[in-house]
Amino acid sequence: MTGQPGVRAVSRRGLLAGGALAAGGALAGGAVVVAGRDGPTGGPTAPQPSPVAAVGGMVEPFHGPRQAGVATEPQAHAAFVAFTLRPGTDRAALGRLLRLLSDDAARLTQGRPALADTEAELGLLPARLTVTFGFGPGLYRAAGVDDRRPASVADLPALRIDRLQPAWSGGDLLVQICADDAVTVAHAQRVLVKDSRPFATVRWVQQGFRRSPGVEPAGHTQRNLFGQLDGTANPRPGVALDTAVWVPDGPDWLRDSTTLVVRRISMNLETWDLLGRTDRELAVGRRLDTGAPLTGTGEHDEPDFAAVGDDGLTVIPDFSHLTRARVTDDRLKILRRPYNYDGVPSPQGHADSGLIFASYQADVTAQFLPIQRRLADRDLLNEWTTPIGSAVFAVPPGCPPDGWIGQQVLG
Amino acid sequence: MTGQPGVRAVSRRGLLAGGALAAGGALAGGAVVVAGRDGPTGGPTAPQPSPVAAVGGMVEPFHGPRQAGVATEPQAHAAFVAFTLRPGTDRAALGRLLRLLSDDAARLTQGRPALADTEAELGLLPARLTVTFGFGPGLYRAAGVDDRRPASVADLPALRIDRLQPAWSGGDLLVQICADDAVTVAHAQRVLVKDSRPFATVRWVQQGFRRSPGVEPAGHTQRNLFGQLDGTANPRPGVALDTAVWVPDGPDWLRDSTTLVVRRISMNLETWDLLGRTDRELAVGRRLDTGAPLTGTGEHDEPDFAAVGDDGLTVIPDFSHLTRARVTDDRLKILRRPYNYDGVPSPQGHADSGLIFASYQADVTAQFLPIQRRLADRDLLNEWTTPIGSAVFAVPPGCPPDGWIGQQVLG
Repeated sequence: MTGQPGVRAVSRRGLLAGGALAAGGALAGGAVVVAGRDGPTGGPTAPQPSPVAAVGGMVEPFHGPRQAGVATEPQAHAAFVAFTLRPGTDRAALGRLLRLLSDDAARLTQGRPALADTEAELGLLPARLTVTFGFGPGLYRAAGVDDRRPASVADLPALRIDRLQPAWSGGDLLVQICADDAVTVAHAQRVLVKDSRPFATVRWVQQGFRRSPGVEPAGHTQRNLFGQLDGTANPRPGVALDTAVWVPDGPDWLRDSTTLVVRRISMNLETWDLLGRTDRELAVGRRLDTGAPLTGTGEHDEPDFAAVGDDGLTVIPDFSHLTRARVTDDRLKILRRPYNYDGVPSPQGHADSGLIFASYQADVTAQFLPIQRRLADRDLLNEWTTPIGSAVFAVPPGCPPDGWIGQQVLG
Repeated sequence: MTGQPGVRAVSRRGLLAGGALAAGGALAGGAVVVAGRDGPTGGPTAPQPSPVAAVGGMVEPFHGPRQAGVATEPQAHAAFVAFTLRPGTDRAALGRLLRLLSDDAARLTQGRPALADTEAELGLLPARLTVTFGFGPGLYRAAGVDDRRPASVADLPALRIDRLQPAWSGGDLLVQICADDAVTVAHAQRVLVKDSRPFATVRWVQQGFRRSPGVEPAGHTQRNLFGQLDGTANPRPGVALDTAVWVPDGPDWLRDSTTLVVRRISMNLETWDLLGRTDRELAVGRRLDTGAPLTGTGEHDEPDFAAVGDDGLTVIPDFSHLTRARVTDDRLKILRRPYNYDGVPSPQGHADSGLIFASYQADVTAQFLPIQRRLADRDLLNEWTTPIGSAVFAVPPGCPPDGWIGQQVLG
């Protein structure tokens, strides 16, 4: 083991956190202020330069048996940041990295600046910030703990619909940053990337969005950029969600963990826009306005796949997205937590739009893959969507206030 | 004149708006729904598939003597879309283009889908959407109306601090799309770019963000990604803002117009983060926490440039940003309406962050340029900021409900 990256990080932190005030006016100036600031949760005399409105002050817990940002009601903004570990980032270095990032996350999510926060005022408005850590196969190899890798955490088998680009695929470590505010996400991303630099390089970043807070009622299924309600079939919060998402037992590095598949799905708005409404609804198997199955009237009505129309065909086409993606057993469902992306259109005005499809499930092989295979095999929507990125991560259990994410895996 | 682009657009719109229902099932299906949908402002029987919460339903007026999106309290998200006119897009074609885009904007801003809206459900939640049109010098040339170009609407003179990239500079037509919701901005961008395609190509798009609705109290000065309060010196809404921004008289193509300078300012967080708090505050001339001048205690306190400290130097450095940018006469002020941008960091973890600096003023030469020259000449902040894009547009007057933006210039 080299240890060098960790040593550098610890030194830098020690310096900024007040361990070396003699280092000179400039750095000491920053350190004093950072060390003296406690944010909204500080005492009555703590400085409070940013007035907080309701949304800004909302806090999601960081510590607990399970990581936040999974069952959490999706926030408006997300950055998925995937890292490649630098050579020499071994088990001990990973422990240092994850202690550091866990501490950053624990503070920022509660509306307090990170210890070495150089833009401390940007750390005071959490807006439901969550930071969720995922471990790719390479992290287990680097740490020499491949026996603790959940078996289904591996590259997905090749699917015929895939046009995967390395720029959006793979990764040893994932940091998923979500908040109801884009400035908060940007600041947390800055802090976490900066503190990771001695240990890892940035492999890819995917930034996405959903409706802003207050635009639609909480819990309402949102539309993607195709205009479809997206997420109707999610397991309901409570027992159904818990059954689908969390590993209920096993060793401590496995219990209360889950897995995350991040797929970047390019949506071809150009050809989709050529379709009429009827054809769109047949492709999806649902009405565009209400999201109801074509055999029903409400979004959550049970579809009747046997119903036949006047033309003698099933009302819901056999190859519709609804039919192919359908799962009724909670143990086999997936929790979709998608974000839209919208890049810069081409000079000819063709959109670069799509979905950051984030799927959580206890087991990728048992839950995600069967659905994905049925969709890859036959799904009318494939005509207008193309997976261009793919990555799989274990989401290890949460940690108590004196712990750090990954301690059960790496400790 | 070729007229061809306009003819194509009008045909397409006629088809989708219900003029050619016999065109076949697919298209007719889309057309019927679009024609029959009136959105939240429709009658009691109008379909209303998306529940609207408070923020989603908020509407900014589109019609009026002045364009919206300038004096409007800044929304959380913005897309600045600059176009290059295609060869042959002459005065008549521009009239057709701007009738079309004005109609799209008039509908979308009021929570109604555009006429040819192929994702009609995405048009129902305006979230304070505004669409503001700007005309670059090339538009006046293409239309043969250069005599109606405000004299100050021209490329800025070269400044020694500039490192301008063509990819972020210039443009014949600007469409500024702002809303408190990123999905709404994406949808409006999609509609407006699509309807522009026969007439123009996309030159650049800059997408930016501020705090989400409800995160900070309305009217509060927000922080940029350097952590600075940004916009303190703006003229106050009312007489001061009106004086700075709107042309009070002149011919009808000039009266109630303004001008917009869009500068893309890269902010070097790497070197900024090496600075201590004291040095940062000296560079800006203000305290980082409260935004107060270094000689005061409140954000809006008058700075005392003559005050001298124990060291015999002025408390506010002569080359501070505050000193160099200072303007007291409302007629010479500018209205800053900046948005943050945050791209993907480099593999080494260096941020791609900065500011989309949007400045409105009645006259670029009289108001923006003197400030910009003083800053380019000597401003401590130049050490950590680099202008990498620049564009200047006239923002023509607004229009009544039966009119269109640009009618005074092109009519």
